[in-house]
Amino acid sequence: ALLKKKKAYRAAGRYRLKKAIFDLGPSGYPFELFIGRLFESFGYQVKTDQKISGKCVQHEVDVVAVKPGEQVIVECKFHSDYRAKTNVQVPLYIDSRFNDIKEKWAEEGRYKDMNVRGYVVTNARFTKDAIAFAECAGLGLISWDYPKDGSLKYFTDKAGLYPVTSLRSLNKGQKKEFLEEGIVLCRELLKNEDLLRKQGLNEKQISKVFDEARYLTGQ
Amino acid sequence: ALLKKKKAYRAAGRYRLKKAIFDLGPSGYPFELFIGRLFESFGYQVKTDQKISGKCVQHEVDVVAVKPGEQVIVECKFHSDYRAKTNVQVPLYIDSRFNDIKEKWAEEGRYKDMNVRGYVVTNARFTKDAIAFAECAGLGLISWDYPKDGSLKYFTDKAGLYPVTSLRSLNKGQKKEFLEEGIVLCRELLKNEDLLRKQGLNEKQISKVFDEARYLTGQ
Repeated sequence: ALLKKKKAYRAAGRYRLKKAIFDLGPSGYPFELFIGRLFESFGYQVKTDQKISGKCVQHEVDVVAVKPGEQVIVECKFHSDYRAKTNVQVPLYIDSRFNDIKEKWAEEGRYKDMNVRGYVVTNARFTKDAIAFAECAGLGLISWDYPKDGSLKYFTDKAGLYPVTSLRSLNKGQKKEFLEEGIVLCRELLKNEDLLRKQGLNEKQISKVFDEARYLTGQ
Repeated sequence: ALLKKKKAYRAAGRYRLKKAIFDLGPSGYPFELFIGRLFESFGYQVKTDQKISGKCVQHEVDVVAVKPGEQVIVECKFHSDYRAKTNVQVPLYIDSRFNDIKEKWAEEGRYKDMNVRGYVVTNARFTKDAIAFAECAGLGLISWDYPKDGSLKYFTDKAGLYPVTSLRSLNKGQKKEFLEEGIVLCRELLKNEDLLRKQGLNEKQISKVFDEARYLTGQ
């Protein structure tokens, strides 16, 4: 019975995952944190909301992810609309921004031995042209279902990166409070029992939330 | 009295010029035609709404202006809101598009001896960052009041490029019909008496419109 419950929870969780990521909105910031966690799960050190000087102007970069020999700058495009597509203008301007930053770093001799790469990540989809341009320009793209072996769908499930918005045992207001505290993953919620208690949940309710969160993240 | 009338017309025309350019909307296409006429007045051969292949993808270019030794591609940003500013993302993506096209041309050995330049033109304003990036990247910018000696305000008045929307002697519907026929300048209207007649204007009314158009354009 426990196994059955576990399986049912996970299936329901996966089914609702796309919606759960949309529910990180309407502001784009929790999605940026979520993408930060994704890069962290691959061993990167992550900073969000950074200002980086380029040769011509200063740029606001959503996520900067660093690991030895590698430096990644990420633009996050959060859409509240399921059908929205990120069009070619976004990879075009990100590539331009990226080149502006790289030129500055080259001038200063910084990160010379590093592999520097730009990424655009969206919760919805990219247009054909956006994908064609990014592939040709060497810019990384991640969307809900692209690329097949590196999409949000793939990573969130593989790495157990279920956002708190996946939980059925929390209501909207409670989820929102977690997001506002910068706690975006079920995995992190499990370390923040206090916030649940502060929200007025009793031990039985907390245990229910923890059960669901554990089942989803496979812990 | 005629001179006084002439002066009054011109002053009123200049005063209303900014609004007249906004009245080219709500669609952005008449503004593209208007910018095409601006480049024509400097001796360029102009085509609007062109598809140009880049190295990575095909681009839709609003205005292509060519003269011996020179090739200009222009992106037009029409805003219906007076206070709108075109931000840095636009020159960033236009520079990227422009480089994509230039790389393709270099591969094919086309326009080798030509000076190739990109432009962004808006009826409203640019942000500081947009101007800083464009100046640094060598991209041309034209807005209502930038650059001082090459703004829309400057050019339209110097070159007598008054749009048909400047005319007080035509109503909204009549102006719209001219725009739909691709007739955007008072100067062109003067060669299209027939359309005024078709719109049901009598000789007296036509003569009034012609007077105003001549005064504005200084003909």
